[in-house]
Amino acid sequence: MVGKVGIIGLGLIGGSLARRLNGNGVEVIAWNHRPHPYAAAQAEGIRCVGTLAELAAAEPQVLVLCNPLKAMPGILDELKPLLDAHPGITLTDVGSVKGMVRSQVEQAGLGECYVGAHPMAGNELSGWSAADPHLYDDALWAITVTQHTDYRRFLTIAELIVKDCGNRVIVIDSDTHDRAAALISHMPHVVATSLINELVCNPDRNIAAALAAGSWRDMTRVALTDPNRTRAMVEEDNVNVEGLLRSMAARLTAMADALHDGDVDTIGGFFAEGQPFREYKHAREFAEGELAIPEAGWQQALLESARRGEAIIGFIDEHRVRVRVHAMPTGGTD
Amino acid sequence: MVGKVGIIGLGLIGGSLARRLNGNGVEVIAWNHRPHPYAAAQAEGIRCVGTLAELAAAEPQVLVLCNPLKAMPGILDELKPLLDAHPGITLTDVGSVKGMVRSQVEQAGLGECYVGAHPMAGNELSGWSAADPHLYDDALWAITVTQHTDYRRFLTIAELIVKDCGNRVIVIDSDTHDRAAALISHMPHVVATSLINELVCNPDRNIAAALAAGSWRDMTRVALTDPNRTRAMVEEDNVNVEGLLRSMAARLTAMADALHDGDVDTIGGFFAEGQPFREYKHAREFAEGELAIPEAGWQQALLESARRGEAIIGFIDEHRVRVRVHAMPTGGTD
Repeated sequence: MVGKVGIIGLGLIGGSLARRLNGNGVEVIAWNHRPHPYAAAQAEGIRCVGTLAELAAAEPQVLVLCNPLKAMPGILDELKPLLDAHPGITLTDVGSVKGMVRSQVEQAGLGECYVGAHPMAGNELSGWSAADPHLYDDALWAITVTQHTDYRRFLTIAELIVKDCGNRVIVIDSDTHDRAAALISHMPHVVATSLINELVCNPDRNIAAALAAGSWRDMTRVALTDPNRTRAMVEEDNVNVEGLLRSMAARLTAMADALHDGDVDTIGGFFAEGQPFREYKHAREFAEGELAIPEAGWQQALLESARRGEAIIGFIDEHRVRVRVHAMPTGGTD
Repeated sequence: MVGKVGIIGLGLIGGSLARRLNGNGVEVIAWNHRPHPYAAAQAEGIRCVGTLAELAAAEPQVLVLCNPLKAMPGILDELKPLLDAHPGITLTDVGSVKGMVRSQVEQAGLGECYVGAHPMAGNELSGWSAADPHLYDDALWAITVTQHTDYRRFLTIAELIVKDCGNRVIVIDSDTHDRAAALISHMPHVVATSLINELVCNPDRNIAAALAAGSWRDMTRVALTDPNRTRAMVEEDNVNVEGLLRSMAARLTAMADALHDGDVDTIGGFFAEGQPFREYKHAREFAEGELAIPEAGWQQALLESARRGEAIIGFIDEHRVRVRVHAMPTGGTD
């Protein structure tokens, strides 16, 4: 267990994390750019401080950056001398695009003490008033590491997630993370936006909207959120999103051609191709096993484990973990 | 009010309709290809008969085809002499692709007494055991008509929907219906399937699937349902789906180009284009008004009303209706 954690930013993600850790017996110290959540947080036992210097002086093992991205450079600059003075503190964050945060951290000269993290948790709300420790129920986190990441610091963050939050974790590099996030979130946001654009440009848009039911509602939900936030997310990950959009366009065009030609083999193949994902989603029982983490090349060993569909669910000792396996059948798709 | 209605097929849609009409004081007579729901239906006051001939002999004002599509040709052939003998009965259906059902009805020589209908109601369940009168709560129906549709027969179906079901209705032609359905359902099903295909083909598919959260879950939900059913739906509406897939592919490619070029104007335009739909979805108050239906050209007048976002919510008399307006702002998109 990590005994003491500092949280920077008591919004939805940071506030929920602070409440969850506090509820699990971790000593939590928090700083927020405005003190409005402090009374409520302190009533729960979360110690709130007025400056980042006070936060560092409390010497938590981990400092978690839960601030908005736009505040990141300023906060990192302010943290640099504080973390130089307290080198035992490991810095992490909860951002959804890992490459960019890592660049900012390295630019600020804090790369050595940093281990990236991204909890798959969140909802449409924001702010401390929406913070809820249950937001992290059954959450999976990605930890992002480099060839230079210190194993002890990685271990601290992994234990914080697995032991103190009670969550699962996979360990990958920032590029793999951001490519995967482009596939399951950033690119689909563009697709959802294209769907509503297609509707708006149709002369029968009001008729189509009147007839829209569950499939349309679900597929366009994310296009209804603030388009500026979506745009920023897409532009931050533009290279990955661009490639995936071209691949999707090719898939849709191939299917249009097959419908035009009445090419039943191609149509059949199109509807069969995703079957491994359907089976993955229908899986209800997961194998568990033990994974030994080698001292040399631990990053690659953990990346390969994640590629096999394994997530860390517990620590046996510092070099052995329990994993749960949730993987797609490979079949003919490899 | 329609006094007596015959229902053909007591599955989810037909059974729910029978229960809703029966609960609203309409005399309901039902036939099902197998009698297993009869005991339960009769306990509620729905009269169940053993043959379609008995159903026609009861002389309901309306017969509603709620049978599976594959049973349609056989049932229509059996109904032809029965409806010739009882010309006062108006035939309707609840199918989700209107052009095909109309062709089948006309091929059976029943076009004169037919008015198409499609309730926007349903869920993932099926069969009488899932039938629920609340399935139709707040539902909107499309009525589909041609230049040859008899106004009295249209009026009977419209009153059944508005007065007896307590639902809203728009009146359009089959082609407009099927184009709109392609836009808000059939094409998006192909897009959802493309998304899971994209994932399955990615070497980091297990990592991406582990990181997937709400946006991915919602956008791929319909790709998890029986792909054979989706395939049949797409192939039935292939011309409309093909055109929409090409349009979507062009949108995704244009956005990929804009991301590649850092073309902020195009990117900004892309995220702004769907704004009328976002405003449409956020609307909470709807204007109501009165619509006069002309004797000549009533079909076109009602189609234009639907295009303006108006739905019929009540009858003042046989040529005047109350409408509720839920329309997208037009702005610069026209």
